[in-house]
This record gives sequence, C-alpha cells and structure tokens, in this order.
Amino acid sequence: MHEITRRLVEFWRLTRGVEGTVPLHAPLFQGNESAYVQDCIATGWVSSVGAYVDRFEAMLAGITGAGFAVATVNGTAALEMCLRLAGVGPGDEVVVPSLTFVATANAVGHCGASCRFVDVAEDTLGLDPARLDDHLARHGGRPIKAVVVMHTFGHPADLDALAEICARHGVTLIEDAAESLGSLYKGRHTGNHGLLAALSFNGNKIVTTGGGGAILTSDAELARRAKHLTTTAKVPHPYRFDHDEVGWNYRLPNLNAALGCAQLEALDEYVGRKRRLTEGYADLFAGLDGARLFRETPESRSNYWLNALLLDRPDAALVGRVIEQAAAAAIQCRPVWTPMHRLPMYRDCPRDDLPVTEAIADRLINLPSSPVEWQGTAGREGGG
Amino acid sequence: MHEITRRLVEFWRLTRGVEGTVPLHAPLFQGNESAYVQDCIATGWVSSVGAYVDRFEAMLAGITGAGFAVATVNGTAALEMCLRLAGVGPGDEVVVPSLTFVATANAVGHCGASCRFVDVAEDTLGLDPARLDDHLARHGGRPIKAVVVMHTFGHPADLDALAEICARHGVTLIEDAAESLGSLYKGRHTGNHGLLAALSFNGNKIVTTGGGGAILTSDAELARRAKHLTTTAKVPHPYRFDHDEVGWNYRLPNLNAALGCAQLEALDEYVGRKRRLTEGYADLFAGLDGARLFRETPESRSNYWLNALLLDRPDAALVGRVIEQAAAAAIQCRPVWTPMHRLPMYRDCPRDDLPVTEAIADRLINLPSSPVEWQGTAGREGGG
Repeated sequence: MHEITRRLVEFWRLTRGVEGTVPLHAPLFQGNESAYVQDCIATGWVSSVGAYVDRFEAMLAGITGAGFAVATVNGTAALEMCLRLAGVGPGDEVVVPSLTFVATANAVGHCGASCRFVDVAEDTLGLDPARLDDHLARHGGRPIKAVVVMHTFGHPADLDALAEICARHGVTLIEDAAESLGSLYKGRHTGNHGLLAALSFNGNKIVTTGGGGAILTSDAELARRAKHLTTTAKVPHPYRFDHDEVGWNYRLPNLNAALGCAQLEALDEYVGRKRRLTEGYADLFAGLDGARLFRETPESRSNYWLNALLLDRPDAALVGRVIEQAAAAAIQCRPVWTPMHRLPMYRDCPRDDLPVTEAIADRLINLPSSPVEWQGTAGREGGG
Repeated sequence: MHEITRRLVEFWRLTRGVEGTVPLHAPLFQGNESAYVQDCIATGWVSSVGAYVDRFEAMLAGITGAGFAVATVNGTAALEMCLRLAGVGPGDEVVVPSLTFVATANAVGHCGASCRFVDVAEDTLGLDPARLDDHLARHGGRPIKAVVVMHTFGHPADLDALAEICARHGVTLIEDAAESLGSLYKGRHTGNHGLLAALSFNGNKIVTTGGGGAILTSDAELARRAKHLTTTAKVPHPYRFDHDEVGWNYRLPNLNAALGCAQLEALDEYVGRKRRLTEGYADLFAGLDGARLFRETPESRSNYWLNALLLDRPDAALVGRVIEQAAAAAIQCRPVWTPMHRLPMYRDCPRDDLPVTEAIADRLINLPSSPVEWQGTAGREGGG
C-alpha cells in the first residue's frame, strides 16, 4: 500500500474510527430539511412557484452579498443563462479553463458558442491572469465575447487580476461559482466579481437541493431578465398565456428550494467543518515526501469543497494506484476531471499552451470531504 | 352574471359545497409522497442517482407500455431531447401545432431549428391529419425533419392517421404527451405512436414531481442515448471523468422522482376522478345555448387533464368576461394559450392556414379540473 493510502486509511479508520464507506462527498441533512419539504407536500406547493423559491433566492442574495439571485433547475442551466444574458450566441467564442467539470464547456456549447481554453495558475487552480492577459492580447480571430472563471474545488481564482484584465480587453467576466458557495476572495463572496455568476446545488456540492442552481448578479435589470428567460418569458397577466421571447423552463421547483433553504441555514457550520477537516488533512500529510495538500491563497477563505492532494510530479499511474487502493479500503478518492482539451468534442477548440493543466491532470487526488462533523476532526489529533 | 358562470358557481358552491378557491388544477398528495421523500432525506439520496429514479422510469415504462422511459428535469427538456435524438439541429424545420403551450415551440428553438405551424382538428384539438398531409405534400422549402403532435388537454390526437402520413412523407413523428399521461388512443397509451415522446410532471399536470419530465421510446438504442445525453454523456468508469460528446444536465433528481413514484401509484384513481368530474360538467352544461363541453373522440379514452368549454362562435370578449366573473367568485378558469403564430418570436414562422386554431383561441374556456374526489362528483347530482 502506498504511503498516501496508508495515511488515509489510518486517518479515517483509526483516528476517526469511521466504519463503512467514506464517501468522497455525501450530503448532510440535520436541520429543517424534512420539515420544509413536508410543508411543501402538505400545502401542495411543490412546483415552480412557491414561498421557498423566493426565500431561497433571498437567502442566496444575502449570503453571497450579490444584489440578486435567481434560482434555476441546475448549475449548467444557470451558467448557460449567464452566458446568454451576457449576449453570448451562435458563432461566439468564450474563454474557459480546460481544467473544469464538463458542464462549464457544455454551457458554452448550449449557447451555440465555442470554447477557447486558457491555462490555470498552480496556486489557485483557476484561470491564470498572466496567461489570460497574454491570450487576449495575442488573439487575432473572432471577438471573444466572455471569459468564464471557475473556482476549482471551491478555491477562489485571482478575481481582482482577472476582472482588471477582462475590463481592459473589453470582455465580459462570468464566474462559474458552482463549487465555491461559502468561499471568499479578499473578504468578499465569490460570484460578485463578474457581470454574472452561476451556483450549483447538485447532490455533491457543499449544500444541495437535489438538483439546482442559481444565477447571481448585482444588476437589477439582468436579474429581471434572468427570471423572465428562465420562466418561459411569460408576460404577467391574470389569466392570459402570452410570452414575448423564446424562453426556457429552467425554474427550480419549490420542493427543491425547500430543501435548499434548510441546507443554507447550515452553510456556515458546514464551511467550518470542512475547514477543520482540511486542517486534519494538513497534519496528516505534513512531511510526506512527493505530495502536498492544496491550500488556499492568502487572499482567499475557501470552503474547501473538495480537498486535493497534489503529487510533486505528474504520475497518472500513481494517481490511479492510490485511488484504487483507497477504493479497496472503501475510501472514495478521485482524480481531477479529464481536461476539456483531451475530450473528443472539445479537442479541436482553439487553446493556449496548457502546461499547468496538463501537469495537474496527472498530479491531483481529491480526498473525502463531506461536511460531517467527524469525531476528532478538530485539532491536531488528525495524526500525521 | 353570464349563464356559464352562473352554472359554474352553482356546480362548485351549491352542489359540491366547496368553500374557498376552486383551483384550475391543484396537485394532490394523499399516498406515499411524504414517506418516499422522507426516505430520500433520511438516506441522503436526493440527487441525480438513486433508486427512485430507476423505479419512476420503470413505472412509466409499465404504465405507458413504452419499452423505455428516461426521466428528465422537465417536459421541455424531454421534448428538446426527443428532437435532438431524432436528428433535429440548427437550420432544420419542425411542424408543430400553433395551438399549444409555448414549450412545444421553444423546444424546437432550443435545438436551433425553426417551427412551421399547421392547423388542428376541431374534434381532437390536435394536429389535423388532412391539413398535415396537404402541407407536407405542398411544402417546397427546406426538408421538414420532424412533426410534433401535442395531445391537447390530454385528448389524444388522431395518431393512426398522423403516423401513416408521417411515414408516407418520410418525416419523423414525435409526441408531445406532456398533458396526456393516462390517456389512451384505440386502447394504447399515448406516447407510443411516434419515434419518441415527451411527458411532463410539472405541478399543474395530472401527477407531479414538482418539476420533471420523461422521454419515452420503444427503441433500446435511443433510450440508451437519451440517458447518456441527459447525464452529461459521461463514459462509465469507476472514477475517471471522461465524456464522449456534448451532453446535457437534464436528469431528474431522486427527490423529485420519489414524489413521482407515489403520484404514479394514484394515477388510475386520478384518471377515474377526472373522468367523473367531466361527467358532472357534461350534465351541468347539457342544454346550454351557445357552448358545449369538449368531449373525447370514440377512439380515445382521455385523462381529461383540463376540461374545456367551447363557445359555438369565437367571442374573445365573452371568454374573458366568463373567466373574470368566475375569478371574482374564486373559481379559476383560463383561456387556451395564445396561439404560437400570434406571439412575437414565432410570428414570422412559416405556417399553413390556421382557421380552426384562430377560432378555438377565442372560443375555449378551461374549467377547474383537479383530481380531488369532490363530494357528489360521481353520478348525476352534478346538476344541470
């Protein structure tokens, strides 16, 4: 058994005494989830209109500090709508990181636009400002309509630098904040640094609605349009069914919003638990030869959605071996997503040099990161 | 008060003794809804994978007789996927009825295709076979890729004739069965007569998942592709994240599927209740001058999702007056949707003559149709 796996098994089985499978990221329902969902069923308000949708949106606006939040059926739909609201359409190009979950690139494709991949920075795992600046300066093809920055595993990208570069080049900045609810950049919540941002509440996120997402913006008119476009563009009327443009059915059902309201009540607690788990992992892997735990930058306070161990050197075989050994011990780890430029449908998209992405793809191991208050997670008894 | 409104008030307030608002269509949760949803929360299986999704799909396949059902996030997404699976893409044309909810046309637009409107038949409110045949024969522009038939208010269109015409012209038939779960055509469930069909479980449908839909097909390979495309086209692997084509995040969360399983258990009962309500309305409006209740054709057994009263002659002012009078008495009625060819974004789409659609738009009043077992709904005590 490799030393990484040995320490992981010790951490979960001995120090924390966890029996059974240690999931990569399981949702946790310990508050008002049942009560709120039952309330929907008891009152019959389960669908696209309901008090929990309004409350969920208000809670999100409050937590993130964004002026407005519009709940959607999932994070992919939210990002697609952010792009459309930014004017992205057929034939346009959008810069996205190649190191991301496939939904980021798919959302671009769903608008009829195409991707252009730029490298990430090793200290944030998000778009590299220097590479982006260089790419936007050298790019001589069709105009680039937007840049999507993704906050990988909850770690904020270098938002000030990226926002300045986008402003200077006249390109709209959009944040894929699917993984970063609860993460701050210079004390300000992620999702506030671009024109629009997308959140996700998929089952593997820090809080979940089963499936769900949200659009964030500080622009009242964009928020109004986001709600209009995601609810079939219906023109308000007591009974007539008129619609004034092509719209989408991307609204979040009240049933899912109810679950989300209860989950958001626990967000601060979950962020705290996850950050304590990260301290445990830091102790566990301290002094380990050949690998280190990924940590937030000084500007950031990360939600540590998914903890990541980084090998010093690319070694895809070792990544696979550790994951398989851990799986044999019922401890779920995983590699980073296959970078977009290695997938068949995005292989031919224009791209910058991607040396960091290429290396990270074969260096990274995600570690179990559920927001459970594991026995002994706090403090130094995490071992190492 | 108009005679129609007077009879409606008598029906709901006096004969049935209902107090408070009579909704157009409210969902009803009287079975295992709470238990199944609680089970999701207790086990943590609320999201995109889970036993209720599998069970919901198996129940749908069984109820409809379709070989396969793939659950989706809503009916619009299901129809968009049906169209994509049928090969509809940018620049293609699709025949749809102008008399439909806007989602039918939007789904075509979401594929990058455009609509071509053909009239409906007065006896089914669905696409008119003779008009469709004539239109496909005379049409001399770009090839028409598909025909979408919509089963209006749950009433099956003339599927045998439409299927024969599509086959003869080499055009794919797709069913928008969003409203017709539980409706049979010649003893066979709707959604089995085209290559693919879409169902909806929005909150106003006969059974609901909060928001949800499903794709039906008898073709195993299409079903496999439907599941693949609606779940980000991920290639199965124990831990790697590879995707082999542009996919969508259109999967139904397990939480919503759980609600749907409990609802499907009640489907037969709800169809029975709705058909008894229709008998009550038939008695109520028997002998009324100037209007008649819309009834199923001899070939059909409709779920009567939404009952409809048809004025003998177009009279938009009267439709509005009855609806407003009923609303003042807290009885929710509504007109048919504004036909697609009257909406600004579809006004310029090619279309056949639409005399029946034009007339129906100003003749139709939908009546309250919830599946509640109203006191006295059965039998003739419905009055009239």
